[in-house]
Amino acid sequence: MLVLITYDVSTTTSDGRRRLSKVAKTCQDYGQRVQNSVFECVVDASQFRRLRYALEELIDPATDSLRFYNLGDRYKSKVEHVGAKASYDMDGPLIL
Amino acid sequence: MLVLITYDVSTTTSDGRRRLSKVAKTCQDYGQRVQNSVFECVVDASQFRRLRYALEELIDPATDSLRFYNLGDRYKSKVEHVGAKASYDMDGPLIL
Repeated sequence: MLVLITYDVSTTTSDGRRRLSKVAKTCQDYGQRVQNSVFECVVDASQFRRLRYALEELIDPATDSLRFYNLGDRYKSKVEHVGAKASYDMDGPLIL
Repeated sequence: MLVLITYDVSTTTSDGRRRLSKVAKTCQDYGQRVQNSVFECVVDASQFRRLRYALEELIDPATDSLRFYNLGDRYKSKVEHVGAKASYDMDGPLIL
């Protein structure tokens, strides 16, 4: 299934900037960065549980937030991109 | 249907910052800001076409990007939120 992960991490402190970097790194282990704070991860249920748990451990729930959107298995027709291509990670194919 | 809109707008110039503000304002007319660059809009097909057209007119496709995710009508079970609540717009109900 495709899980879309979006996050807001407060970067007013150095701790916050560290959390942001760790959240991005963890998402990168499971998927593809498509915008600055948006990752698309093709995962099964157990991978998703692990990823979600790891992210929940990283954030400060008082200031940061995560959102998960489950787009299921037939996601290709549900996603559209307009404008500049993401160039964050050239290793994996972009889902367009 | 629920359409999730995420965007990256380059803010290295004052033109970019103006575009960013216009993109956010346009999305606000149709939905609910849930994170800094993430909007959830409950729209029908014709509203979505209008919104999409308006956003495409606003961005600079060389530097900015938009992504649209169609989560269909039965979206409530597909969306999860963890951590701090968005406080961008207190007028509308958050979709949680």
